[in-house]
Parts: sequence; structure tokens; C-alpha cells
Amino acid sequence: MKRIKLVVAYDGTNYCGWQIQPNGETIEGVLNRTLSGLLKENIKVTGASRTDSGVHSLGNVAVFDTETRIPPHKISYALNRFLPEDIAVQDSCEVDLDFHPRHCESRKTYEYKILNRRFPQPVNRRDTYFFYRPLDIEKMQEAAELLCGTHDFKSFCSVNTAVEDTVRTIYSLNVKKQGDIISIRVTGSGFLYNMVRILAGTLIQAGTGDLEPWQMSEILKACDRHAAGPTAPAHGLTMIGIEFL
Amino acid sequence: MKRIKLVVAYDGTNYCGWQIQPNGETIEGVLNRTLSGLLKENIKVTGASRTDSGVHSLGNVAVFDTETRIPPHKISYALNRFLPEDIAVQDSCEVDLDFHPRHCESRKTYEYKILNRRFPQPVNRRDTYFFYRPLDIEKMQEAAELLCGTHDFKSFCSVNTAVEDTVRTIYSLNVKKQGDIISIRVTGSGFLYNMVRILAGTLIQAGTGDLEPWQMSEILKACDRHAAGPTAPAHGLTMIGIEFL
Repeated sequence: MKRIKLVVAYDGTNYCGWQIQPNGETIEGVLNRTLSGLLKENIKVTGASRTDSGVHSLGNVAVFDTETRIPPHKISYALNRFLPEDIAVQDSCEVDLDFHPRHCESRKTYEYKILNRRFPQPVNRRDTYFFYRPLDIEKMQEAAELLCGTHDFKSFCSVNTAVEDTVRTIYSLNVKKQGDIISIRVTGSGFLYNMVRILAGTLIQAGTGDLEPWQMSEILKACDRHAAGPTAPAHGLTMIGIEFL
Repeated sequence: MKRIKLVVAYDGTNYCGWQIQPNGETIEGVLNRTLSGLLKENIKVTGASRTDSGVHSLGNVAVFDTETRIPPHKISYALNRFLPEDIAVQDSCEVDLDFHPRHCESRKTYEYKILNRRFPQPVNRRDTYFFYRPLDIEKMQEAAELLCGTHDFKSFCSVNTAVEDTVRTIYSLNVKKQGDIISIRVTGSGFLYNMVRILAGTLIQAGTGDLEPWQMSEILKACDRHAAGPTAPAHGLTMIGIEFL
């Protein structure tokens, strides 16, 4: 038996997220079904980041165990022939049998994209959140800097989740503007449920002036979801990639 | 009566192009229907660029005549409330009654986008042509320079069209690479049927080495569609905008 690691890109628009759901198609469900058909085994993948409904990916990671004789690097090519066009494997390779994508140290990078202009732009509507009120990206960057480092991010975690430890480390959080697209890129040791979308929603409020950058420290201290800004819509979020340490 | 000019953006994926067709939804058809409903008049728009099925736009232009009392700049806001999410008006203003978007001098800009890497990337699959053979963008740029200027572009015009005059002027034709996306941006006095897609298909052949850059002059001289490269797929093409001189 061997363990195979896949790097998986997808347009999350038409999926109920990564994780298998009783009602509705998921990325995990499609991968299990397609791999099982291709390899003639009962395959169950384990994902690194269980992205929400509507969230996209350039480089999520999944592993599965198989007895196949297909060379590991060729699985990606074979698999892509059978996957729907909104899911595409970017790489496949063999890893140690004890490698688990959620139980080992990693740095995950996400990007949240905002179209900041007067009117929406149809071509990028699926992966970019349209927001028409003008955003001050210097204020957003100033706020972002105060959120970097190791903190208790309880204020940035959806209330309907029961996580024990809400301390996480953000290694970098950058706000950039290119034309009328503002992108918030964050790299961290891991993220709480909805954390990146709440970070984005809070930085947007810093950009409009509804919050002042200095208030970020108070929001962190509050350890209360109500202190932070709203959860930004899922479709603006893309999982960029994961580096295993 | 007054004449209103609209700047129209759209994701062309689900449309049979700009121009009204007996079978299938078109951008022109949706605009006519939506404007007629909004203004309670029988509205017929005239488009500047009758883009093909599957081609996108950031800034196509259309005009129509109306008796409405809605201030011209407010028509865009009103219209966007009723348009489907894959069409969005970017601007509306009044123009002279003799302004015709196809019968006056203009500079049109189009962009053709290519994803040049080993595997497709689902998020941008709708507006970027995936091409896996490595492309040499210096050779593409070298070829592009030979196509600039005023030439008979008969070789770059689909055979199934009966145009009299095939002389056009290309003011600029630039090939740029950002990450693994190559974009070909062209500005010209006007373009023949399928011309931008044939330019893109021919530059791709220069990028693979199937054609040498110097052959561009011979292809122009041939005045024969068979001398140029293939017509690149529609979905990689976006109409960027039109400047009226």
C-alpha cells in the first residue's frame, strides 16, 4: 500500500464545500468517486483544508491510500481526464504512510479578493466580492499589521463552532491593490472556522472607516465574535496553497 | 428624443454572442428586453462590437434612442437592477443623435488570455484558454511586432465572410506574461471577422516554434486564410474597450 498526496484546484461555485454532505455535491465526494472508479478500489481522501461552500482553491491538499500500480506522478494526468472541468489536480506524488495533511505542521495561504468600484464586473464575479463603497487600502494594511503574530483569535471565529484552542499564528497579512481589485493575502499556522472571511470582513470595515485600525487590538482582546466585523461572502475566498514544514 | 450610450460588460459564456439570433440568448436581446421593460418603450440597441459566442467584454458600447425622463447617468444604475448577473452596464450618458458606434472612427482594444502550464486551473477557465505546450513569449512578441501597422489582413479573416476591404491598422499588439498567464493585447482601427482570434492562434504557433516570427510578413503577403494559424477558442477573448476619436 502507498499513500498519495494530491494538490487540488477547484472553482467552488457549484459545490457545498470540501467535506461530504448528505445533500449536495462536494469536492471530497467527487474525488472519492472519481478515484474509486479510476483505481478500481474504494478510495477515501483526507483533505488538508475543509473549505466552505463556494470557496475556491488553487492548491488544497488531499491524501489517500491505494494499492494501484499507476506511477504516483501519473495519477494527476489520469484523474484529470475524468474530473469535471471545475476540479483539476495540479500534482500527485507519493508521501510517507504516516503523513496526515491536518495533523502535521503547515503554513496555509488564503487570498480574499474584492472588486472595489462603482459597478460589478461580470467576468470575475465568481471569485471576487463586489464592494462599491470606496476602501482606503492604507488603513486596511495598517489594521492588518496589528493582526499579525500569535494571538487568541476567538473574536474571529464563528460562534457556532466548539473549538478548544483558539490561539493561532498569522505569519503575514498583506493588502494590495491592482487596478480596482484589492486582495488580502494571509499566511498562518492554521485558521479557525470562518476566520479568513471574518478577517476580510473586519479589514473591509477598516477600509470604509467604520472601524479604526487601532481597534484591531481591542477586537482581539475582546475574545468575542461580536467585536469583529461581518463574515465576508465565501465566493471572494481562494485557498492558495499549503507548505508542510 | 435623445440618444444614450451604454458601456456594457459581460461574461459571454452563456450567450450566443452579441447579435440577436433566432435560436439562443444574446447580449443584444437581453439589453433590448430589459431596456424596453424598464423604459416602457420599444428599445433597440446598436452595438459597436458584435462579439462572437463565448467572447467576454469589459467595455463594449451600445446606443439607443429613448423618450425617457430618467437622467442619462442614472440609467446604468436602474438597468443593472434588472440585468442578469453576467451582464453589467458600466456607464450611461447622452450622446449626439448622429453618433453611431460602428460608423465613426474608433480604436478598439481586445485581450486574449492564455494559461500556459501543465494543468488547467478551474477558477479562470471561463475567460482564459488553457494551453499546455510551453510558449516562448519573446518569439511571440517578435512576431507581434511584424503585424503592427496598416496591412491587408485578409489572411487573418475567416473565409466564410464577404468583406470588401480587408485593410486594417493595428496600433499596438503586445504579448505579456504574468505568472503563468500570457496576455495578448491588441488595439486597432477595427477588426475583421475572427481576426483577433486568428492573430492569437498564429502568435501561439510562433510561441511553440511551429511558425518562425519572420513568417508573419509572408502570411500577410499571402492574403490567404490558410497561411495563418488556427482560430483560437472564443472564451480566451475579452473586448476591453473602445475609444471614439
